[in-house]
Amino acid sequence: MAKNEKVTIYDISKKLNISAATVSRALNNNPKISEKTRELVMKTAQELNYKQNRLALALKSGKTNSIGVIVPYINRNFFSAVIDGIEKQLTPHGYNVIICQSHEDAINEANHINALLNTQVDGIFMSVSKTTHDTVHIEKILENNTPLIFFDRKKDIPGVSSVTIDDFRGGYMATEHLIQQGAQRIAHFCGDLNLEIYKNRNNGFLRALEDHNIPINKNLIIHTNSRIEAGAEAVAKLWAKKNRPDAIFSSSDYAALGAIQELRKLKVKIPEEVGVVGFSNEPFTKYMELPMSSIDQTPVTMGEIAAQVFLEQINNKQHVLSVEKRVVLAPELVIRKSSNKTKSLKGTPPVSTE
Amino acid sequence: MAKNEKVTIYDISKKLNISAATVSRALNNNPKISEKTRELVMKTAQELNYKQNRLALALKSGKTNSIGVIVPYINRNFFSAVIDGIEKQLTPHGYNVIICQSHEDAINEANHINALLNTQVDGIFMSVSKTTHDTVHIEKILENNTPLIFFDRKKDIPGVSSVTIDDFRGGYMATEHLIQQGAQRIAHFCGDLNLEIYKNRNNGFLRALEDHNIPINKNLIIHTNSRIEAGAEAVAKLWAKKNRPDAIFSSSDYAALGAIQELRKLKVKIPEEVGVVGFSNEPFTKYMELPMSSIDQTPVTMGEIAAQVFLEQINNKQHVLSVEKRVVLAPELVIRKSSNKTKSLKGTPPVSTE
Repeated sequence: MAKNEKVTIYDISKKLNISAATVSRALNNNPKISEKTRELVMKTAQELNYKQNRLALALKSGKTNSIGVIVPYINRNFFSAVIDGIEKQLTPHGYNVIICQSHEDAINEANHINALLNTQVDGIFMSVSKTTHDTVHIEKILENNTPLIFFDRKKDIPGVSSVTIDDFRGGYMATEHLIQQGAQRIAHFCGDLNLEIYKNRNNGFLRALEDHNIPINKNLIIHTNSRIEAGAEAVAKLWAKKNRPDAIFSSSDYAALGAIQELRKLKVKIPEEVGVVGFSNEPFTKYMELPMSSIDQTPVTMGEIAAQVFLEQINNKQHVLSVEKRVVLAPELVIRKSSNKTKSLKGTPPVSTE
Repeated sequence: MAKNEKVTIYDISKKLNISAATVSRALNNNPKISEKTRELVMKTAQELNYKQNRLALALKSGKTNSIGVIVPYINRNFFSAVIDGIEKQLTPHGYNVIICQSHEDAINEANHINALLNTQVDGIFMSVSKTTHDTVHIEKILENNTPLIFFDRKKDIPGVSSVTIDDFRGGYMATEHLIQQGAQRIAHFCGDLNLEIYKNRNNGFLRALEDHNIPINKNLIIHTNSRIEAGAEAVAKLWAKKNRPDAIFSSSDYAALGAIQELRKLKVKIPEEVGVVGFSNEPFTKYMELPMSSIDQTPVTMGEIAAQVFLEQINNKQHVLSVEKRVVLAPELVIRKSSNKTKSLKGTPPVSTE
């Protein structure tokens, strides 16, 4: 149908009785063409519905005013909030933000990268999937000279800017808070240590124990994914044994939610017998029957800063690959009922209670 | 930089010592070219990093294997679940799903449509924004002969397929359930009646009252948006007067959440004094201190069916604009504590309790 019968510059040239070369130059904003002719061509192009060839123009100019964002899932509040921050900064600059989800699958991620490069986006923001081990497909972005900015989950690729939060500090704060609440046997749901963010949270956990002279007990470190069921299973496993934990620090809010559900089934009192702290401050943590303490990652700020890094990078084109910024944001501990034994809190900032 | 020094078919032709026309035909899968030559050309194209011109190919064939989805917000579980349904169906067919959010702004929506048409997507799925009144920007999709499928929130445009749920039935079920729980003065938070979905929920509410011989009281119908604050304000307004309601049916889970928070502040007992039912079955409704009854819209099914309608449409190209499907799904009432005074439920299917 009409897609194959599309309007070409020849149709415009015929209608205006000028050469196709002139039409082409006018559409390309060639300074040799008078403003009057340019306007006439643009108007006729619009009348004839010449839109598809604007893509060809983009192909030529290398600018589409679109940027792509690849996240594992859009339905995690953390990721959608980062995207909001990116849009907040880039929409006023005329950018269209296109979102893709990898579903934690490196193959999907590679397909999205190809599609985004094929549609000539002006930049790509990404948070890598859990199954992304090698980075060949990501390096294609750089080979294409398209700016790339990592947020939250990154890979170490020279020349690539990133905006992350200090996950080590987040892990440290959560653990220290539980120790201050009297915990001595803290279980840690550590997530996939292949990802830097989880490794750093884990390191923060270990350092806090060390700093407070609490011996590390490997039986209390459970590898979970970030699903509700994983947290429930981890609790079932821990409570099947003797020497149960007196606190849980979960690198995932969802696993922490599963833990709380399972602990309630087992009639374990929270926070009296076991304090629980999650990570991400997903909105549901606030609305739970027993509101959950968590680490807030200031995702909107993360998205805004990622967008600013992108704008700086493209406004500095001659060095496009040599500018590398690594912004690390401070996390915030939000203390709620699930870990708060004392009524008045003596937490040091940045700590907020709700 | 390299974006302007890109590899052309001439580079491939030079390297292989064959004509540029042969290279072009091979890349276009022209049957005149032998399989051996085609493979050689493809391999060389890959080696030379010929990716950008694949866009030119897409321009020629009119197929990019990308489809665009425009939703008001990605961070509403309903919309992200529909998108999951679409991806579940289309990813196995080699489609890349690109997501854009309108933030309920018709201008954003128009910009996204332009960008998606310019990148030559093979189809657009959309749920219109609340501020979309005229449909000129949407009709551009049809003028471009790109398949368009509405889901949930649609506009009446001839020839456009849609997948929606029976909002009238959802409104009716929620209201009838409250009546069966003994309510006689039911307040309704009706949303923006400019949108069909809210109009239909409102009509379902009105019909249920009528069928149960309950007089309609306009003072109990409150125009709210779907934000937590709107629900809290509506309760504050209703409870400032005499003749307070004994139940609330909110067209939005978020407004219902705000209502519950405000009712608790006012020490009103839920569900004993006031039963509350929301709409959408957002995940937080389950995790609330007082789990909320709601209407489930089966969003994954909605996305899957929307994707199937798209596939049928493109596989039936000669009639691409004449195929119009209107699929209406049945909603499901999920009864939880916020509206359940009786311990044993006698609900008629489709009703589930949790």
